[in-house]
Parts: sequence; structure tokens; C-alpha cells
Amino acid sequence: MRSQPMTKITEVRVTPILISDPPLLNIQGVHQPYAPRLIIEVETAAGVLGLGETYGDTDFLNLANEFAPRLVGSSLSVNDLESTVRQCAEQIELSRIDTGVRAGGLRGARTIAKTARSVASAFEVAIYDALGQETGLPVHALLGGKVRDSVEFSAYLFYRWAEHPSTGSGSSGEGGSEIPDEGLPKDDWGAALDPEGVVAQARRMVRDYGFGSFKLKGGVFEPAQEVAAVKALAEAFPGHPVRLDPNGAWSVATSLRVAAELESIAEYLEDPTTGTEQMAEVARGTSLPLATNMCVTSFEEIPHAFATDAVQVVLSDHHYWGGLRATQELAAICRTFGVGLSMHSNTHLGVSLAAMTQVAATIPTLRYACDTHRPWQTEDVITEPHTFVDGRLPVTDAPGLGVELDHDQLHRLHQRWLDLPIRDRDDAAAIRRVHPNWTEPRW
Amino acid sequence: MRSQPMTKITEVRVTPILISDPPLLNIQGVHQPYAPRLIIEVETAAGVLGLGETYGDTDFLNLANEFAPRLVGSSLSVNDLESTVRQCAEQIELSRIDTGVRAGGLRGARTIAKTARSVASAFEVAIYDALGQETGLPVHALLGGKVRDSVEFSAYLFYRWAEHPSTGSGSSGEGGSEIPDEGLPKDDWGAALDPEGVVAQARRMVRDYGFGSFKLKGGVFEPAQEVAAVKALAEAFPGHPVRLDPNGAWSVATSLRVAAELESIAEYLEDPTTGTEQMAEVARGTSLPLATNMCVTSFEEIPHAFATDAVQVVLSDHHYWGGLRATQELAAICRTFGVGLSMHSNTHLGVSLAAMTQVAATIPTLRYACDTHRPWQTEDVITEPHTFVDGRLPVTDAPGLGVELDHDQLHRLHQRWLDLPIRDRDDAAAIRRVHPNWTEPRW
Ligand SMILES: [Mg+2]
Ligand SMILES: [Mg+2]
Repeated sequence: MRSQPMTKITEVRVTPILISDPPLLNIQGVHQPYAPRLIIEVETAAGVLGLGETYGDTDFLNLANEFAPRLVGSSLSVNDLESTVRQCAEQIELSRIDTGVRAGGLRGARTIAKTARSVASAFEVAIYDALGQETGLPVHALLGGKVRDSVEFSAYLFYRWAEHPSTGSGSSGEGGSEIPDEGLPKDDWGAALDPEGVVAQARRMVRDYGFGSFKLKGGVFEPAQEVAAVKALAEAFPGHPVRLDPNGAWSVATSLRVAAELESIAEYLEDPTTGTEQMAEVARGTSLPLATNMCVTSFEEIPHAFATDAVQVVLSDHHYWGGLRATQELAAICRTFGVGLSMHSNTHLGVSLAAMTQVAATIPTLRYACDTHRPWQTEDVITEPHTFVDGRLPVTDAPGLGVELDHDQLHRLHQRWLDLPIRDRDDAAAIRRVHPNWTEPRW
Repeated sequence: MRSQPMTKITEVRVTPILISDPPLLNIQGVHQPYAPRLIIEVETAAGVLGLGETYGDTDFLNLANEFAPRLVGSSLSVNDLESTVRQCAEQIELSRIDTGVRAGGLRGARTIAKTARSVASAFEVAIYDALGQETGLPVHALLGGKVRDSVEFSAYLFYRWAEHPSTGSGSSGEGGSEIPDEGLPKDDWGAALDPEGVVAQARRMVRDYGFGSFKLKGGVFEPAQEVAAVKALAEAFPGHPVRLDPNGAWSVATSLRVAAELESIAEYLEDPTTGTEQMAEVARGTSLPLATNMCVTSFEEIPHAFATDAVQVVLSDHHYWGGLRATQELAAICRTFGVGLSMHSNTHLGVSLAAMTQVAATIPTLRYACDTHRPWQTEDVITEPHTFVDGRLPVTDAPGLGVELDHDQLHRLHQRWLDLPIRDRDDAAAIRRVHPNWTEPRW
């Protein structure tokens, strides 16, 4: 029997980075050439380095910077992390973020609590990574142990442009417009702007990574076009689950029409409309399960949504739900109330993917393939980026998250953050550089 | 960075014991002189011994004996423990226990799932104890870390007799009747059969252990007498929370009458009546919070009870809720739905008390003093039984549960189990030896 106490946290670093991102379309516009992200490093007296990752926009960065020093000197525990980060958020007067769109964002309502959770989660993951390394245990063992040896992910299909639009010279303002054309990230996926393009993208996803499930990000074209794409996918890949997520773009009537068309085809329909009451109305009119990462995005939203049976599947996300343990709590609540569980993804790197995989491995009721943007990110901050095989990632038993920081890459991506003017994700500004009068579509 | 994999479980022992118990009265009769209990030992290849404890009645013992060998060779993980124990329960056809009282037992409905959880919890605790010792971490750290350094417990007051009734010679049958008089356990607490007796008992509890909260087990005398006892306690200990738990003895009308009398006096009223609908009816008619460990005793019962606002406080119990992590899940659900959390106790020894303390330390929303029967148990299977100071127990940072098995005591109490005919708790049989025509009271 050993009796070594946990060591203390001796240093915490918060590093904002910009990662290259393809021109993926969604209801809010188009992804900018670079997306902000935060990398958290937690060092312990035992010389261990734990890693975390979360959103890098200004609100998150400010809060992380404010909180990080307060963690120094504490031990490796996570149960009170969210509340201490939230206290910190209240102290630095993040209350202005409460004025954001009530439920229209890609991740639902913006609140202090959710911002605090999104930041707390990165520290939680870093602490678990450190604790795992100190004890020799994988993170999943610290979460109660894995119930599967690999985690299945879905191919996340996007309507997209072939390239980011040219910036022109001398222009300025938001939307990455100060990035010279030769600095714009490029890839060889080409455009996908119709059912054929979507199916071609899916074929490459299957060829390169072996994905067995598909999710199409909708809310870009009129519903009939997106329904046609889902039908084309179902026809091209018979027996493989397909999902559609228009991010709340549709009215109740449109949602019901689409649901009727996809009832025997789709695995689930994700956020067809916006708001709990509207989702409940759609749910009452279809047998197709409704999934969400917009209408139920926090513990506060659960009671009303579950009472009205507005959603049949909740997409967990350890970032904004507040961490790995919060994800397990969400899973327990969904299990108790007979609601399904899937997993949401935002643009992310390997630290988050490792965390998603570890927690996914611990949840018996997670029976859908998890979302991931990872194939769209060509950069990473870990020395050995993950590779999907048969659409799956193995659940490592290496200590902690089982990933190692690539210090050079982190430095390079942070230097980009220092060099470029992008601080917040703004898909609308990016699309308006091409379509100046663009507004969020609704059908 | 160390990289040692978790060791495997090499041996599992299940030891039934009988522990001496005073003649405490409740709605089901009186405690027998000895109570069955199970001690679980999990040994690992690293030479570590993890301890667990749960109910020792026949159903639990049979299931634990059936399950224990299946654990040998597995690693120290707990996320799938409940479902594997439940599979085991179904295989050995424990389905007959489904025929028990639907919601009348002291711990609510009896189901396969709950029996499986009660058994799984003991293995889970033993695994956490072993894992903690292997990693050098206290169990609370494996549960996310403590949020408090000590846990408050309440004085659990009982109406009681001074002594167990004499058995007479040559008698036989249930209820401990084959125990010779000189073998009956004795203590010096004396009888408590009226308000004065209850207050005297409380004074000694305060003097010896410093408890600051009181819980009176009711359902023994007519409600007016028990209300008088609660009022006497409130008068004798002004400012100290008092609770009353008649174990569902009352009609809705009686419950409402008592609630009205105690609204400004009691902290909460525990299970005044039986059944979710009746509890909801009482809840609608009083501002006094209703607590329960009978109407909500499993995840399955939560949705209906919460939807009808039948209870305002749930008493967690890691034994029948399925373990330490299940207790945290329950806490998350209660937090999410705005329901309070307290902690239930059954006759238990130091292994369970250590586990209760460790998990209680991790739950920010556990704001009531926890119940414990511990002061009534004069025996233990750990080398250093816990001592309450100011009604609290410190949360140890020692590896695992921080307790050590007293092998001699375990052997002695197991020998008693081998020697005496008591196999199942049967308070009714025990009281009928004194009052042959006794039936469960209802008011
Ligand atoms: Mg979505
Ligand atoms: Mg009770």
C-alpha cells in the first residue's frame, strides 16, 4: 500500500491559438480561415503536465486567464471547479454575455454559467490528465472505467466552398479580412453544394476513415435540397445511420414536413426548430426522434424540456456542459428520464478528442456514434494526432489522456494568434464578405 | 510520469456476519438482537485489500456469493458493475423478490434492480478502496475530490426498550428466539418510550458525540405523542434542526395535520405517508419539505415523483442506489430538478460509514446532516472505529477508505452468524414475541 498524497498544482498556462479551418457553411454563415481555441496546461509539483482544451473566443480567454492563477497551489480535484470558475466569472462581470441570443446560437443560449462551464471543463480535463499521469491511470479509470474498448464517431458532412474567399488587398475589418490571400489555409476536399457533392464528401470520409454513420450540417439551403442530400446519402450507404442538423432553421410546419419525409430514413433529426415549445410541438407530430444541442445545453434547461418531451436525444459536450464528470451526470439524467444520449462536436483538436473519447468510453448508454469535426482540422497540438480506423478510435489505457503536447506546434499556433486579428468566431462576418446582404436563413 | 497499469482482482471474499443491535422500535416492529450484514473483501495482484459492506439478508448474500467469483480476473473499474450484477441476479432467478411489498418496506419497493444495486454497491466500494490504495489516493479523490473537510451527521433517535425481551428456555422459531438470554446484547441507554425519554437520549447523544441535528424515528406511537417528542426536542435544543420519520405510517389527513403542527418547528418531515400520489397530496398541503427514502429509492421512481413534486428532499443511500457514483448521479439529478439531498442510514458498521463519509464529502449540494445508526452499533470490523466529534467525522486523505480490516472481529462476527439461526432481518417477528397480535400500525 502506497501512501503518497496528491501533489499540488504549481503552474497553470493558458495559451490562445488560431487553427486553420475550412470554409464550412452553416446557418450562421461560413467558418473563418482560422478558429480561436485555448490550450490549458496544468503543471504539478511531481513534474507532470496535464492538458485541456476549449473555446478560444475573448470571453472564454478572459475568464480562463482570470481563473488560472487561482488554481495554483490547489490539489488535483474537480468537484468544485465549476462553482469556483463561476464565482470568478461573476467577479469579472461577465454578466454582459447574458444579453446574447436566448436560444439561437449554434450551442443554444449564452449565459455566464455556460461560459464558466466551458472554461471549467478545460481545467477539469487538464487536472484529470495530470492526475492520471501521477497515478498511472487512464482518465477513463478515474471516471469509473471504460465499458468499451473503442468509440465510434460519425462522418460530419458539411456544405462547403472549395476555398476561402479572396481577401483582396488593403481591405480591413472583421472576418479575417486582414489575412493576405497567400496566408489562407487550403485543402483538396473541393466544394460540396448539392446532394452529389455531399455524397462525394461522404465517400471520401468513408474511404479515409471508415465512418459508418453520417451527420449532415444543414440550415444552409432550402429544406428540400437538404432532404434530397439525406436521401442521397441513405441511398449511397444503405443501412448506415444518417442525421440532419439545420441548427433550428425551420418553422414548426417546415420541421413537421421534413420529419414526415425522413421518418423512415434518418436516425434522428437534430434541432429542426428553435425553442423548447416549438421542439415539443414538432416532437408531438413525428415518430422521428428529435436530438438537440441547442434547446438543452445546460442542466437548467433539462426540467422543462424533459417535462414537455421536447427532445428524445441530447447531444452531450464536455466543453459547455462543464467537463467529463458533468457529461456523466448528464448521461445519468438522460438514462433516468428515458432520453437518448449522443455527443456534439465543435471545431477542436486532439486534446479535446482524447477527452471526448475517454468519457464516451465510460458511458454505457451512449449508443450513437459521436460527432467530431476532427477530419476538418489539419493542424494539432499533440505529437501524435488521432487516426480514425473503421470510424472508431481505440480507448487508450495510457496514463491520463494518453496524448503528449507538441510544444513547437503550440508555439506556432499561438504566434499566429498574436499575428492575426481574429479573436472571436464570426461566421456571419465571413460570409458577408462574399454576400454583403446575407442574413440568417429561416424556412 | 509513471505508467503502471491497474492490477487485476485476484480474490474476492463474501463474509456474512451478525452484529449486535439494540431493541430499537419502528413501524415494522423492533430490531432483533442481531442484524445480518455482509463484508466484501477484494484482493488485487498488487497485494491490496479493498473493503465493502452491505445488507446481509439471504437475497443479498446469495447474489453476492454468485457474483463474487465473476469479478476475479477483472480490473478495478466500476462503470458496468451494476448491470453485470443485475444480469447475475436475473440468471439466478431472484425474480421472486419482485413480489415483495410494493412500497411499504423501510426502504421502499423491493425489486431485482434494487437488490442488484445493493450488492453491486458493496463491490464498488471495495474496488474503490483497493484502487485508492493502489494509487495512493483517498476514495474522495477518485470521486472528483472533497468539497469539505468534515461531514456532519445527525443524532438518530429511536423509541426503544431497555433490553431485548427474554427468550425463555426451550422456545424456538423466528425472531432470535433460539438465542439464550445470557447471549442477548445489552447496553446502558435504557428505555425511551415518551418525549422525556427521547430528550434524555438526545442529551446523551449530544454529550457523547456533539450532534447538532436530530432525527426521530417515528411510526411507533400515535402521532400526537411523536409530535410532542419533536416539540420537546425543539424546546430542549433551540436552533437545532429536528426531523421526524414515521416510515409512511400516516394517512394523508393525518400527515397534513402533523405537518401543520410542525411547519415552523421541523427541518423536514420524512415519509409521513406511503406512495407517490399520497406524498404529492401532502406536499401540496404544507410548506414543510417532505423527505423520503421510501417513495424515491431508485432511478426508476424519480421521473414520476419529481413530476408530481411529491418530495422536496431525497435521502441518498449508496447501498441501495448502487454505489458511490450512483449517489453522485442522484445528487446531480436532485440538483438539476431543484430537489434537496440528505443521506439515509441503515444499521451499518465502519466500512459503510467510511464510504458514506467519503462520498458525502464530494457532493456540494448535500447540505443536511447525514443519518447514521453508528452510535447504536457497539461492534465493528475495522481496527479503529470512527468517533464523532461535534457531530462530525473528518474526511480522511488516507489511501482508499482509510480503514483497516480487523480480521479477528470479522471472524468472530462470522462465527456468530454460523452459530445463530438469524438469517434475515425480521422486526415484526421480534416484536410479536412480546405482542403476539401486533400488526403494523397506521394512523
Ligand atoms: Mg447541432
Ligand atoms: Mg426514512
